Amino acid sequence: MLTVFSNDQLLHEGKSEFHRGQLLPCFESPKRAELILAELQANKSGDIIAPDRFGLEPVLRIHDAAYVEFLQTAFDRWHTIHPDCDALPHTWNMRGARDILPNNIYGQLGYYSCDASTPIMAHTWQAAKASADAAIMAQRLVMQGHRSAFALTRPPGHHATSNVYGGYCYLNNAAIAAQAFLDGDAKQVAILDIDYHHGNGTQIIFEDRNDVLVVSIHANPAEAYPYFLGYADETGTGAGKGYNLNLPLPDGTDWNSYQGALETALAAISRFTPDYLVVSLGVDTYAGDPISSFKLSSNDFSKLGHHLGKADFPTLILMEGGYAVDNIGCNVVKVLTGFEDAI
Amino acid sequence: MLTVFSNDQLLHEGKSEFHRGQLLPCFESPKRAELILAELQANKSGDIIAPDRFGLEPVLRIHDAAYVEFLQTAFDRWHTIHPDCDALPHTWNMRGARDILPNNIYGQLGYYSCDASTPIMAHTWQAAKASADAAIMAQRLVMQGHRSAFALTRPPGHHATSNVYGGYCYLNNAAIAAQAFLDGDAKQVAILDIDYHHGNGTQIIFEDRNDVLVVSIHANPAEAYPYFLGYADETGTGAGKGYNLNLPLPDGTDWNSYQGALETALAAISRFTPDYLVVSLGVDTYAGDPISSFKLSSNDFSKLGHHLGKADFPTLILMEGGYAVDNIGCNVVKVLTGFEDAI
Ligand SMILES: [Zn+2]
Ligand SMILES: [Zn+2]
Repeated sequence: MLTVFSNDQLLHEGKSEFHRGQLLPCFESPKRAELILAELQANKSGDIIAPDRFGLEPVLRIHDAAYVEFLQTAFDRWHTIHPDCDALPHTWNMRGARDILPNNIYGQLGYYSCDASTPIMAHTWQAAKASADAAIMAQRLVMQGHRSAFALTRPPGHHATSNVYGGYCYLNNAAIAAQAFLDGDAKQVAILDIDYHHGNGTQIIFEDRNDVLVVSIHANPAEAYPYFLGYADETGTGAGKGYNLNLPLPDGTDWNSYQGALETALAAISRFTPDYLVVSLGVDTYAGDPISSFKLSSNDFSKLGHHLGKADFPTLILMEGGYAVDNIGCNVVKVLTGFEDAI
Repeated sequence: MLTVFSNDQLLHEGKSEFHRGQLLPCFESPKRAELILAELQANKSGDIIAPDRFGLEPVLRIHDAAYVEFLQTAFDRWHTIHPDCDALPHTWNMRGARDILPNNIYGQLGYYSCDASTPIMAHTWQAAKASADAAIMAQRLVMQGHRSAFALTRPPGHHATSNVYGGYCYLNNAAIAAQAFLDGDAKQVAILDIDYHHGNGTQIIFEDRNDVLVVSIHANPAEAYPYFLGYADETGTGAGKGYNLNLPLPDGTDWNSYQGALETALAAISRFTPDYLVVSLGVDTYAGDPISSFKLSSNDFSKLGHHLGKADFPTLILMEGGYAVDNIGCNVVKVLTGFEDAI
């Protein structure tokens, strides 16, 4: 399978994230992308090409202009006050407060974020934009007739909304790509999110729309990040009622239980008859992941890829999470190889 | 002036707070209360008595039962997972997510908080409850005929709502005391918040009520914590319309500008004709405060106390912020002495 990736995506490298009471080294590191690339090359998985540079237009189809400007400028504003640490929020809008944007950088960081685990550094914008460009480039290739393409989108995107970053995500690559299909020749697009964590950003972006079906298989949010969305009773709002499907699974889920949810998800997508399928692929469902609790083995990722290929849609696969770096490359390659073997 | 204080209030001692991208030693320390006590004793300011232990009833008049239970149990739940660090939230409800309480401790910490600067330790509940008891005890004394009383409420309270902690606050002592007056012989009560930071918790608790006038003089929230509330256009909601007055002031405000706002505040309170006045006193308006930007001198605090005394209401003074520990005792004593000299 063709892979799209830009070296600019490696420029984002956080010193630390605030997680569970401590400042820890960032789980989401450039090494993740490097190891996936190395494994793709070792397995001769297909060409790896750099994306074109697209303008802001496809990004602004999903994200608020003020939010994008914030991402572009936040680090410089922070850096003049704090030359030695990455920008992380420490306070946020509480229940009962106003949805108002303060002037102050600390207030703005809180306004635009949903956790203190997602740092903004000197090159965060550049890397996030390059990651979105990879998604758009791969989307163009699929729209031009490729049966599938893989965008190695790092930093990931599925936790970002139109105006909130978090969960290591800044720009919602899957949403940008789905919208780009619709702005091209598509009437309807399905997004299947198989990251361990619920794709809260993607759900929020599309929950009132019926041209994008969002299906997510993920850890029960009552017990796992992002905690405040991803429950089974969220089925869409307004015109989008019935176009959101959440399939939360319990701690310790293995392939036996996972496979059933995957079949349910793919059946719902088939009924929707999308013109294109966008897959938000996280391999943090792997048994060895340091921040997750599912129990998929490396071989299970082959089966997962097989199911995706058999689903028989023009498919764009985007990278989301996965933090067991020793196995991340192998697990991603198994998904892509499983996909290709099925078609 | 009589002071109410319990030694249990010293038991809350955080290791660190997450603030502006770093884990820093807690600004809000037991030392603050010890230094105020020492200065009160040195100045023979009046008796210092311990509060009775009140039940949960007056607390539950303001705070949700589930929130109180969370505060009572959060540390034990955290400690079994993290024996070596204080409980701090790292993620929260984002715009567009649900107002839903997850089961998980990390999710619940985010659900019930508004910043990562307010740790929960082994004795946080015990100290917060003792602080509220001090407020209630002083409230009882004023209701019984004392012209004034000072509750050395530490931890402070004005940032806490019915179900959110933050800004070093867990239980809203001022709100609990105001409600206790109303549950006693009062028909209406005024709260004057003169901490550097807007009393967002107090505003949210009373903003739809007309039996409590809330007036706050504070730093412009567009530039200062709590950022998302405290703007001049917030005048109350529903039945409370017209019963909330915010007087935000710019960075660098000195006594000349402050005095005008104080006179405006006291004039509004006089028009309201409250049966009692509750003062949320912060001395983080002091020029030397490490996290604030106002420029009041120690002598200005005498003038401030004088204005409060001249206002001529039965007055309960509660402690909120103030982080210039070398001067905190002196500044508080000046307010109390200024008050007594005026009556
Ligand atoms: Zn994930
Ligand atoms: Zn304060």
